[in-house]
Amino acid sequence: MKIFSTASELTTALAAERAANRTIGFVPTMGALHAGHAALVRHSAAEQAVTVASIFVNPTQFNDGQDLAAYPRTPDADIQLLREYGCHYLYLPTVDDVYPAGLQDNPVAHLDFGRLTTRMEGASRPGHFAGVVQVVSRLLDIVRPHVLYMGQKDYQQVAVVRRMVDLLGLQVSVTGVPTVREADGLAMSSRNRRLNVEERRAAAKINRHLSAVAAGLRSHWPARELERLAIKGMQAVPLLEPEYVEVVDGDTLLPYQDGEPVRELVVATAVRVGAVRLIDNRIAITANP
Amino acid sequence: MKIFSTASELTTALAAERAANRTIGFVPTMGALHAGHAALVRHSAAEQAVTVASIFVNPTQFNDGQDLAAYPRTPDADIQLLREYGCHYLYLPTVDDVYPAGLQDNPVAHLDFGRLTTRMEGASRPGHFAGVVQVVSRLLDIVRPHVLYMGQKDYQQVAVVRRMVDLLGLQVSVTGVPTVREADGLAMSSRNRRLNVEERRAAAKINRHLSAVAAGLRSHWPARELERLAIKGMQAVPLLEPEYVEVVDGDTLLPYQDGEPVRELVVATAVRVGAVRLIDNRIAITANP
Repeated sequence: MKIFSTASELTTALAAERAANRTIGFVPTMGALHAGHAALVRHSAAEQAVTVASIFVNPTQFNDGQDLAAYPRTPDADIQLLREYGCHYLYLPTVDDVYPAGLQDNPVAHLDFGRLTTRMEGASRPGHFAGVVQVVSRLLDIVRPHVLYMGQKDYQQVAVVRRMVDLLGLQVSVTGVPTVREADGLAMSSRNRRLNVEERRAAAKINRHLSAVAAGLRSHWPARELERLAIKGMQAVPLLEPEYVEVVDGDTLLPYQDGEPVRELVVATAVRVGAVRLIDNRIAITANP
Repeated sequence: MKIFSTASELTTALAAERAANRTIGFVPTMGALHAGHAALVRHSAAEQAVTVASIFVNPTQFNDGQDLAAYPRTPDADIQLLREYGCHYLYLPTVDDVYPAGLQDNPVAHLDFGRLTTRMEGASRPGHFAGVVQVVSRLLDIVRPHVLYMGQKDYQQVAVVRRMVDLLGLQVSVTGVPTVREADGLAMSSRNRRLNVEERRAAAKINRHLSAVAAGLRSHWPARELERLAIKGMQAVPLLEPEYVEVVDGDTLLPYQDGEPVRELVVATAVRVGAVRLIDNRIAITANP
């Protein structure tokens, strides 16, 4: 695996790969890699000739400075894991290399995502998606992959990036990779490392509640009642503070109205567990399995 | 496989097996065998030296004459299947051989099952469990098995038979075998043969609703709310008419009170699908997996 810390070096190397007609898969990460990232890299390595990963804790997508400061960083282990997973190139830049004109320079700030970015994570984390779009568009410009691999755990993020690709007319397809879970069902997340033993145990209940909502949705139980039961249920678990539980149309991320036809039906949640904020979702029904 | 139509012949044959210290497993059935019965016979064949099955459509456990008349009978196919499943003895009696003193002669009519037989199937089918207890006690007296194998689809029946064994101090252990399901989740039942195509499709939803209740119970959602959602949900499915959905303590079969400690937590239902009445259940939580 070749490691580059500057966009210019990486661009040169990847230009040669493209010239040789090798397809490029790209896995952007913030490091602190786990089995969920491994799944992304393995998907890319299985489907594309060349796999590129990036490790960059993007400051512009953190609305909470404490969350940014506390975000786990494990670069040595990450490099080791990416090698094992079959990654060919790693972009490991400084903030200046990603944002040479400064953090405020956001060429995609004008894009209108409508209500896709105003609800759920958009409502809870002001500015978060503007930062995501900023960094992903910049990284896509550097890497120019054929396929972008993203984890479905960040379901809304994948939807926003898909929309950005549409709005900008980029030549890249976006593949959402199913969430990888711990044995007890907790979705893999770099933030899980910040949980203590009691918090970790409580966090495993999140997936239980989402699974129950998904099972209810498959039986056409009323979405708002299921949201209410999951919220109440999680509130009853010590250490869990649910921010939202929303059953949404997977394409628009607008609240699902019982009985309306949708391609994909999703229940998404954000939950505070002690000082850590976790998100998760379950796809209850999909027309493209 | 040896087939006997009289208790006396079977008793003689099995006395020899017992004298040779061979353990006997017993699978009582009403015929119209399916993969659920196959699982019972295979469990017995795997665990016991000798497996005995009976095929007897017991008239005393039918509270509904039409249901008795319509109960499917496929003796030739059944015999073939039992041979394949590894059964050694089949008891295929007449009504007179089972009840030589007449249908009214019920030596276990005095047993007091308390509320175990007054709710759910007991409430919906008056006299049903008296007939079940009557025939099972008679069959146990004939076969004298070491282990009795019964399907957990008839969860309440298994509980009643266990209680009967306790009350009578019989030397037999009762093994409940997990429900076998069709690919779409419908519990195997001889009565499924009476469903037309539309009814068959609707019937598959029953398990969906029970699974949703079970998922909710695993998240400690309120039992009464889950029952209500499942009832309403099934009522919304054309052709389904739920009779009851009950979340019960698996030992007492009394309504589960949220938070109380139980060994096993079960949701059970009876649903009319056209002219056919089906039952099913899901074990949501068990301390003895």
